[in-house]
Amino acid sequence: MEAIQWKANSLYLLDQTKLPVEEVWLEFSDYRAVAGAIAAMVVRGAPAIGVSAAYGYCLAAMEYRSLSPAAFQSNMALAKGVLAASRPTAVNLFWALDRMERCLSAHGNSPDAVPALIAQARAIHAEDVEMNHAIGAHGAAVVPEHARVLTHCNAGSLATGGYGTVLGVIRSAFAQGKVDMVYADETRPLLQGARLTAYELVRDGIPATLIADNMAAFLMARGKIDMVILGCDRMAANGDFANKIGTYSVAVNAHHHGIPFYTALPSSTIDLSIPDGGGIPIEERPGSEITHVFGVQTAPLEVGTYNPAFDVTPHTLLTGIVTEKGVVYPPFQENLAKLFG
Amino acid sequence: MEAIQWKANSLYLLDQTKLPVEEVWLEFSDYRAVAGAIAAMVVRGAPAIGVSAAYGYCLAAMEYRSLSPAAFQSNMALAKGVLAASRPTAVNLFWALDRMERCLSAHGNSPDAVPALIAQARAIHAEDVEMNHAIGAHGAAVVPEHARVLTHCNAGSLATGGYGTVLGVIRSAFAQGKVDMVYADETRPLLQGARLTAYELVRDGIPATLIADNMAAFLMARGKIDMVILGCDRMAANGDFANKIGTYSVAVNAHHHGIPFYTALPSSTIDLSIPDGGGIPIEERPGSEITHVFGVQTAPLEVGTYNPAFDVTPHTLLTGIVTEKGVVYPPFQENLAKLFG
Repeated sequence: MEAIQWKANSLYLLDQTKLPVEEVWLEFSDYRAVAGAIAAMVVRGAPAIGVSAAYGYCLAAMEYRSLSPAAFQSNMALAKGVLAASRPTAVNLFWALDRMERCLSAHGNSPDAVPALIAQARAIHAEDVEMNHAIGAHGAAVVPEHARVLTHCNAGSLATGGYGTVLGVIRSAFAQGKVDMVYADETRPLLQGARLTAYELVRDGIPATLIADNMAAFLMARGKIDMVILGCDRMAANGDFANKIGTYSVAVNAHHHGIPFYTALPSSTIDLSIPDGGGIPIEERPGSEITHVFGVQTAPLEVGTYNPAFDVTPHTLLTGIVTEKGVVYPPFQENLAKLFG
Repeated sequence: MEAIQWKANSLYLLDQTKLPVEEVWLEFSDYRAVAGAIAAMVVRGAPAIGVSAAYGYCLAAMEYRSLSPAAFQSNMALAKGVLAASRPTAVNLFWALDRMERCLSAHGNSPDAVPALIAQARAIHAEDVEMNHAIGAHGAAVVPEHARVLTHCNAGSLATGGYGTVLGVIRSAFAQGKVDMVYADETRPLLQGARLTAYELVRDGIPATLIADNMAAFLMARGKIDMVILGCDRMAANGDFANKIGTYSVAVNAHHHGIPFYTALPSSTIDLSIPDGGGIPIEERPGSEITHVFGVQTAPLEVGTYNPAFDVTPHTLLTGIVTEKGVVYPPFQENLAKLFG
């Protein structure tokens, strides 16, 4: 299953705000609309945002290809800025746009670079799927037999170019007969666990149990969770990482119960320019996501709200980091550096 | 504010499933409907369930008062069973019904006892409000100046005869100028924090910030929570206690961050017949509460669900227990026994 397609010079995104009740594909030919779709979480998940932004960059180049070389170049810089401003936390977004910009630069910043840019975006997409299969293979090796696995949010096909990072690990481990049950946190406020992870697991016939986020700790206390694995939106050089809000609570609880706690990510998610988690910007989203659920009011409108989209989990709570290059263990600072060395 | 009223031989309940969007009062003249309303959470919160069941017992006595003494007595026993079966976890329910039954017995199990039973139910109700003011006074003393307080679910006026246990403490401390902010967990799946606690706080002009349950840990990590106080549905002799699902996760996180963690309760919530938390029955509710929010589908219907209404927090994570008789500190087993001595 893939939620991002490039066909006949248009980008198609499966509207993730409508899942699982409706499967609606949206067509994009304007990069500004792609930036809007990223902000509105039509597409979400760090790798999927990166792939979508790369295609959005192609749409910009197609729009501006008839301009003079100088105007083309300045407009492409503006378009990159618009796409980069769509969401602040996931580093894959900036990584993918930088890679597209380098490709353009390698072709003399010329409007003639459009075919090369499209090829580059397709390569980013294909490499992401390939990396997820590698992440799946490395991660499956750390999943115990008869595992009951807890995950949070969605780091699946829908969050990536395809196959998924965390769900890639779970898919690979399930294919090896090692997964007895996947517990999916529903993941308030936007319910990506209920809407997206449950949808992917049901589609693939993987045994799945949906819980409210606040039930995970009690499952741990009752001995029903053997490991936790979840995604990552940006990792600092020391292994501290930002991921969907609620990740940190799961991490503290896993630590309290002595349950192995992994994150799975492509190495493009690691931002060596940030020494620790304190430097990762945390997006705050509108309070209406808390006072309403799917448009239904659930709280008095006069109440204050706090709605961070992500939290930061310190590396001290991590058992291991599953990447396409292998599983990284402590000391993370040293071993992450080696990954890039 | 009170959500339970007895007027002209009828019980009136403010329908808590409709708050905060609508304020609807329902009239009850049949005890079976009262049991149904407790099961459907029209009224919820351990003390409020106890008060409502006591009034329900009066409705049964009024219904059966024209029967022969023998038929009256056997039907009252059946009515008690129906009311007791409405929810399994809160001990106040059984405590209130036992007290009503003792009152009936003291009046020779006679249909003539109806006025005495009504007086007894009114006394249970009035005593609960009085106890909450005492809980508020004792609890306010442990609230620090400029406190930023986290609570979970609703242990307010709506959960009790009036004033509230936890919100009684917060109301008393706020009146003393000690409360800077109350953070309210929304409390999935039924959102009592969003719907009821936020509603009570806004009504009383107490500064309130609503968060999703999974955000509490991140607030703690950022140093924004000075204390946690939340309710209790049943406490064992050693201080282990059942409360709304998610309480245990908050307890583990408060412990991890060194934040004082209190529960507030009337002493009728303490069940000395149960040695520890392992003996407290945990109600499991329908999976549709997880796959839907207010009737809106949020997950694929094919997914499995797990929906415990409560969890059990071990006494080792508790800083203190605020009761109408004072604050109990460790060793809890010994000091709880003294409370009843």
